[in-house]
Amino acid sequence: MDLLNEKFLKIGVESAPGQETRQNTEEIKLPGEKLAGAPVDFSHGDVDAFAPVPGALDVFTAGVHLGGRQAYTEYRGSKSTREDAALKLAGFTGAAIDADRNIIITPGTQGALFLAMGATVARGDKVAIVMPDYFANRKLVEFFDGETVPVQMNYFQTSDCAGLDLTQLENAFKDGVKLFLFSNPNNPTGVIYSPAEIWAIADLAQKYGVFVIADELYSRQVFESRTYTHLCAQDRIDPEKVITIMGPSKTESLSGYRLGVAFGAAKIIDRMEKLQAIVSLRAGGYSQAVLKCWFAEPQGWMSRRLAQHQAIRDNLLLKLRAVDGIAVRTAEAGSYLFPSLPALGVTIQEFVKLLRLQAGVTVTPGTEFGSQFTRSFRINFSQNHQAAVAAIDRLIQIMERHRQ
Amino acid sequence: MDLLNEKFLKIGVESAPGQETRQNTEEIKLPGEKLAGAPVDFSHGDVDAFAPVPGALDVFTAGVHLGGRQAYTEYRGSKSTREDAALKLAGFTGAAIDADRNIIITPGTQGALFLAMGATVARGDKVAIVMPDYFANRKLVEFFDGETVPVQMNYFQTSDCAGLDLTQLENAFKDGVKLFLFSNPNNPTGVIYSPAEIWAIADLAQKYGVFVIADELYSRQVFESRTYTHLCAQDRIDPEKVITIMGPSKTESLSGYRLGVAFGAAKIIDRMEKLQAIVSLRAGGYSQAVLKCWFAEPQGWMSRRLAQHQAIRDNLLLKLRAVDGIAVRTAEAGSYLFPSLPALGVTIQEFVKLLRLQAGVTVTPGTEFGSQFTRSFRINFSQNHQAAVAAIDRLIQIMERHRQ
Repeated sequence: MDLLNEKFLKIGVESAPGQETRQNTEEIKLPGEKLAGAPVDFSHGDVDAFAPVPGALDVFTAGVHLGGRQAYTEYRGSKSTREDAALKLAGFTGAAIDADRNIIITPGTQGALFLAMGATVARGDKVAIVMPDYFANRKLVEFFDGETVPVQMNYFQTSDCAGLDLTQLENAFKDGVKLFLFSNPNNPTGVIYSPAEIWAIADLAQKYGVFVIADELYSRQVFESRTYTHLCAQDRIDPEKVITIMGPSKTESLSGYRLGVAFGAAKIIDRMEKLQAIVSLRAGGYSQAVLKCWFAEPQGWMSRRLAQHQAIRDNLLLKLRAVDGIAVRTAEAGSYLFPSLPALGVTIQEFVKLLRLQAGVTVTPGTEFGSQFTRSFRINFSQNHQAAVAAIDRLIQIMERHRQ
Repeated sequence: MDLLNEKFLKIGVESAPGQETRQNTEEIKLPGEKLAGAPVDFSHGDVDAFAPVPGALDVFTAGVHLGGRQAYTEYRGSKSTREDAALKLAGFTGAAIDADRNIIITPGTQGALFLAMGATVARGDKVAIVMPDYFANRKLVEFFDGETVPVQMNYFQTSDCAGLDLTQLENAFKDGVKLFLFSNPNNPTGVIYSPAEIWAIADLAQKYGVFVIADELYSRQVFESRTYTHLCAQDRIDPEKVITIMGPSKTESLSGYRLGVAFGAAKIIDRMEKLQAIVSLRAGGYSQAVLKCWFAEPQGWMSRRLAQHQAIRDNLLLKLRAVDGIAVRTAEAGSYLFPSLPALGVTIQEFVKLLRLQAGVTVTPGTEFGSQFTRSFRINFSQNHQAAVAAIDRLIQIMERHRQ
């Protein structure tokens, strides 16, 4: 099992969001006093601060009462739920979605991502991955024995686009990349790709025959009405070369129900269903019913949620930018910020552990998003507003202790 | 993607349970009249006939009200739920289970099986698989680029054991098999491995250093107090070489919540958690709460359920055995029967389609469980008793139309 030892070493979860309590922290020396304050776990959103879409439990319960036909759906998900979701997602994105051929319901967007990668990455395939991007992307390439080809995103040098290095992208495609996987808005920076960037990605993928997986998990949470461009709805690329992933786990706080969807290329959706059949059979049957709440939130609910998140974002940006040596780009969408720190006397991994143990503040180290991000960390600011602000104050204090 | 085309051709789901409605049936000629009667889907249990454990929805709802800490558990599952489940499973099986190291909660037992296989099968590894056994086993080996080594189970030649060919098993182990995967009670035949068979498996695995995955999904539903032997509790094999899989989807009818557990080898559980982190993050957070109901059913509930299933089993066995040319072994546990038919003028795939279209009866073709089972089919008899009996009458009528 040496091959497996090697593989599983590369897909470690010790620093992954939510796993921090499993870390061995016995050997860490703690310099200075502990800082008091309500613990804040910035590794994911706080669904107690931002509650799930109203009515979710009611439709779940109705699903349970439907009995067998809700418990045992097709592997790709209940037909009526797919029809409902296809209609809503076609309306939202502008893409054509046939409920029978182009959509699958999955256990969370993580489930959708895993299936999409398993359906498109063969052993040895080159996969272009943005730096930085969602930490699981690289691990998925490792797991499927692909080869990661990094493409830089210069998010600090731009403000009206993501800053994707299109020359690098084209060179990667020329060099035989089979798949391009990216999140939009970008996780962890919260930047949105400009229309020109999306068109360039579509044109290059079409030219070089590259398959594209677009992770649009946070695409409903766009601040200040910034333009958001759905790659799947551009007529510049063969729709059979695109899979789009979305789900109600983030903005809608429905993560506890484990729901996601993937839509697009019929051939790949077919493969994803075959894979789902051996991975987990289907998204939880009763949970599937909860998708009815999605894109059907009460009037004003979504705009209120957006405004509340924007206010937290602005407050944290103000705090962080007041500190000499901290740089952070404004998130244009989603709930993430990805600040970079000045030079510290500890590594980012040590800083993250100290922060948790001494200040009750959990953040995710930048190295999860690309090995070069040794001075960055990610926070999910979907938190209690005041607690989040106080936690950032403590974070800054701990940081100052270690500034070089 | 030619590698992938080949791989996904081998893991087709067209004949898999629950997928029948997606079959293309336009070209089938239908000889004879349709037979009237309530449709029965024998491809899985009917949770309307046998309702979920009472109180499941209540503990789910309580989980939702717990909020964030139930929604976002560690990837291996909520600590308190693992502690509770470890205690119950140790009591049930007799194995030692450390809640922190030896157990993971998964989206269904299918999820547990996928993770266990992904954590133990490297490219090119030989995996011994029983013929017949659960249809996903072979597909999982394909997906992970392993090589299936079949081992026959002579279930028709025995009655006091499963009939596993131990000589073949030892030869397979000698020949370099890395992993042995088997279900006990066996799916699809419902036979239980005898103590001597389990000891032989343990001794051979220990001797040749083979890892064992035991799928014990139906091990609570044992008829007539037959002796059931948990491999994980025998002190004949290194506990770090065994993973056991169970879950509340079958006897307990909780499939709609997608819950399973795997317990055993700490190193493999660690890998399974790493894999779960990229496959689906975790079993649905709120659903995890439902495991509280497991092994905590109301007094008398389980024995009543057992008696009801035994009565259906006996009735169907009587019907089937009255027909010349049909052979079927008595299921000693679980809800499956795996009858074999006399020679027909149609293939088993055609028979299964005709049966569904002409008699409203869905069964799973034997070839899903091993390519040699061209005259067998599987039924899950966890159904409304009268409807099941009537459906078997119709099955026999359709069969007679095609007898050679």
